[in-house]
Amino acid sequence: MESLPHCETLLLEKNGPALHVTINRPDVRNAMSLQMVAELSTVFSQIESDLHIRAVVIRGAGGHFCAGGDIKDMAGARGQKAGDGEADPFYRLNRAFGQMIQQVNESSKVVIAVTEGAVMGGGFGLACVSDVAIAGATAKFGMPETTLGVIPAQIAPFVVERIGLTQARRLALLGLRIDAEEACRLGIVHQTAGSDGELREQIDRAIDRVRQCAPVATAETKALLHRVGHESMSGLLDSAAEKFAKAIRGDEGAEGTLAFMQKRPPAWAGEEH
Amino acid sequence: MESLPHCETLLLEKNGPALHVTINRPDVRNAMSLQMVAELSTVFSQIESDLHIRAVVIRGAGGHFCAGGDIKDMAGARGQKAGDGEADPFYRLNRAFGQMIQQVNESSKVVIAVTEGAVMGGGFGLACVSDVAIAGATAKFGMPETTLGVIPAQIAPFVVERIGLTQARRLALLGLRIDAEEACRLGIVHQTAGSDGELREQIDRAIDRVRQCAPVATAETKALLHRVGHESMSGLLDSAAEKFAKAIRGDEGAEGTLAFMQKRPPAWAGEEH
Amino acid sequence: MESLPHCETLLLEKNGPALHVTINRPDVRNAMSLQMVAELSTVFSQIESDLHIRAVVIRGAGGHFCAGGDIKDMAGARGQKAGDGEADPFYRLNRAFGQMIQQVNESSKVVIAVTEGAVMGGGFGLACVSDVAIAGATAKFGMPETTLGVIPAQIAPFVVERIGLTQARRLALLGLRIDAEEACRLGIVHQTAGSDGELREQIDRAIDRVRQCAPVATAETKALLHRVGHESMSGLLDSAAEKFAKAIRGDEGAEGTLAFMQKRPPAWAGEEH
Repeated sequence: MESLPHCETLLLEKNGPALHVTINRPDVRNAMSLQMVAELSTVFSQIESDLHIRAVVIRGAGGHFCAGGDIKDMAGARGQKAGDGEADPFYRLNRAFGQMIQQVNESSKVVIAVTEGAVMGGGFGLACVSDVAIAGATAKFGMPETTLGVIPAQIAPFVVERIGLTQARRLALLGLRIDAEEACRLGIVHQTAGSDGELREQIDRAIDRVRQCAPVATAETKALLHRVGHESMSGLLDSAAEKFAKAIRGDEGAEGTLAFMQKRPPAWAGEEH
Repeated sequence: MESLPHCETLLLEKNGPALHVTINRPDVRNAMSLQMVAELSTVFSQIESDLHIRAVVIRGAGGHFCAGGDIKDMAGARGQKAGDGEADPFYRLNRAFGQMIQQVNESSKVVIAVTEGAVMGGGFGLACVSDVAIAGATAKFGMPETTLGVIPAQIAPFVVERIGLTQARRLALLGLRIDAEEACRLGIVHQTAGSDGELREQIDRAIDRVRQCAPVATAETKALLHRVGHESMSGLLDSAAEKFAKAIRGDEGAEGTLAFMQKRPPAWAGEEH
Repeated sequence: MESLPHCETLLLEKNGPALHVTINRPDVRNAMSLQMVAELSTVFSQIESDLHIRAVVIRGAGGHFCAGGDIKDMAGARGQKAGDGEADPFYRLNRAFGQMIQQVNESSKVVIAVTEGAVMGGGFGLACVSDVAIAGATAKFGMPETTLGVIPAQIAPFVVERIGLTQARRLALLGLRIDAEEACRLGIVHQTAGSDGELREQIDRAIDRVRQCAPVATAETKALLHRVGHESMSGLLDSAAEKFAKAIRGDEGAEGTLAFMQKRPPAWAGEEH
C-alpha cells in the first residue's frame, strides 16, 4: 500500500489482484472536482507498471457513481481570467477531465466500473472508458449539458466510441436520461445487477476472470484492441504477430503451455496473486 | 413561413421549434424523384442558419415513408447521353441523391424521421441519417438494389455508418426486407410505436426534449459527434474544450447557469420557442 | 468440380450457387492447422473469379466449427529456429492465419458461417469475417488465449471490427466463453437456430436470397461496404456513383430492369444458377 498516493477525494484499497477505488464525495453525489481528476490521474499513473495490480474497480460512495462536473470549480473558473499566453481557465478545467478519461481508457489494467445512482456528465464519460461496466438497479445515465447551455465536450466523443454515432446522437441531442436496462441494451454497460448481492457477485466474477488471464498478455491484448481502426489492418496484424511470437516464447507463454499440459492452473491464477 | 421555399413534392409546416416536412407523392409511395432531392436540399440549406427552427420532422404522406428511387427519372437518364466532358446522367442522378443525404446527415438541426410503410432504397438511406428515428408498426426496410441488377451505391455506406459493417453486410448482400422490430434491434431506428397515438406521442416527446436543449449548444454538439473517428481523439478534445469555454462564457451558458440557480426553465425552453 | 483444388483437411461440394466447405478434422474438433490455413486460402483464391459460385458455406464436421490453433503446429514452431533473415516460425504461423482471415473477409462471395460446438480462438476469428453467421444451439464462442499466456493477435482485431471495441474489450480481457444467444445479442452471429432442421432451413433461405441477387452487383456492393470508414465519405460516394452508372448500363442492370417490367424473375435467380 505504501506505493499508493494519498488521496482526499478517493478511497483506495488493494485486495488480491484488484485495486478498489471509491469516489468519496457522497455529499455532492461524487461530483467530479479538479482535485478528483488530478487524484484519479495520479493513481492510474502510479499503478501503470505495477504487475501486482491487474484490475481497477471504480465505484462511488453513498449509492451514486458520479453526478458530473463540480459546480464550485465552475464558479471558480468563471472568476478567473486567463493570464498572458494562458488558456481560458474553463478550457483547462474541461480539458484536464478529458485527459484523465483518455488515460483511464488506455490504462493497461482491466478497468471495472460499478455504476449506481447518478452516472451523469463526467461520470457518464468515465463509465464509457471501462473494460467491464456493471449497472446496479438504481443507475441513471445522461448528458444534461445542452439543457444547461453548454456542451458535453470531453464526454460525447467517448460516448460515440462506446456505442456508435447512431445511439450517441439521440442521447446527446435530446439530453436524455436513461436507466440501467436501456444503458445495457445500448452497450454503455455490459451487464446489470438486480440486487446488491448480485452486484457483488458480478464484481467478484469479473475479478476472478482477470486472475485467470496472464497479466502481460492481457495488457498487450488491451493495447492491441485500442489500435484497431486507427491504422491499416495489415500493418496492425504484422505487429500483432510479432507480439504473439514474443508472448509464446516469453515467461507467460512458457508457464501457460506447461500448466495446460500438466492440467494445473497457471501460476498467475493462484490465490496469492 | 415566407422564408421557406415553395415545393411541389414536399409539404412544409412550421410548428413551435419544429419544421414538419411531409414527402408528398403518395401515388408513387413517395418515390424519390430528382425534384424531391433538389427540394429537400433547398429546404435544409435555407433553414440551416435559422435559429427558430431547431428540429426537422420528416414523414411520408399516405402511410409510406419513401419507396426508393423514381422509375421515371431512371428511364429519363437511360434516354440521355452525356455531353462532352459531362458525367453520365445516371452518375449525376445517383450522386445528387447522396449529396442530399450527406447534407441532411450534417444538418445542424435535430432530424427526426418518422418511418412507416415502405422505407426502401433511398428512403432507407434517408432514415439512416436522422438523429432520432421512430418506426410505426407498418414499416418495412430494405435495400432491394442487387435484386434489380444494380447497387445501393449512395445508401449502403450510410447503412454501414448507421449499424456497422456486420449487420450491413447481411442486409445488403441478401437484399433483405426487415420489419420495425428488427430495424430497432439493429439500430436503424431508435424506437418503435405500436399505434398512431403512440407514434404522435413519441414525436411530441422528442420535440419537447429538443425544446429543453439550448439551440447553439445542440448544433455544436452534433458537429462534434460527427468528427469522432475522423481525426485524432486528442486534437478533437482540444478543439472541444475551446468550444466548451466559448459556450459557458456565451449567452446560452450564462442563461443556462442563471436559470439553474433560479430553479426556473431557461429561456429557450419556453412555449414561445 | 475439376477446378476445385484437392484438399486433405476440407471437404468441398458444389451445390447450385453455393460451395459447401466442411472443415474435416473432427478428431481434433477441427483445430486450425497450417495445412488447413493453406487449403482455405487456396480454395478462396481459386473461386474468386468463378461467377458460378456465389456463396460459400463454411461448417465443421462432427458438431464443432473449429476449436482454435493446432497444438502440434505450435510444438513444431517451438522446435524450429529462424534462419538468417527469416521471421520467427511463430510469427509466420500466426500471420499466415491472419492473412487467410483477411482474404475470407474480402472475398467477393457471400460467406455463410454455420457455427456449432467449439468456435474458439482461430475459429472465432473465422466466424467474425462471414457475411451471414448462423449459430446452432451448441455453439460456444471465446478467445482463451490470455489464459494460456499468449494473445489473440490475429483474432481480436477482427472481433473489434465485428462487434466494436466496447464488447470486444470485455470478451478478450476476461477470456470469456459465451453461448449462441449472447453471441447473437453482441452481433458475432446474425441468427440462431434451435434445432438441426431450423439450421438447415436458415442456410437454405440464405442461399436462396443470394440467388435472387445479381452476382456482379453483389460483389461490387460487398467491396463498397468494406471501404466505408477507410476513406473520405465524399470520395467513396463519387466512386460508388460511377459503379452505379456502370451497373445500370451493364448486362445485369439491363436484365434486372427488363425482368422487373416483365414481372418475371431475372435470369440469375433461376434454378439452373
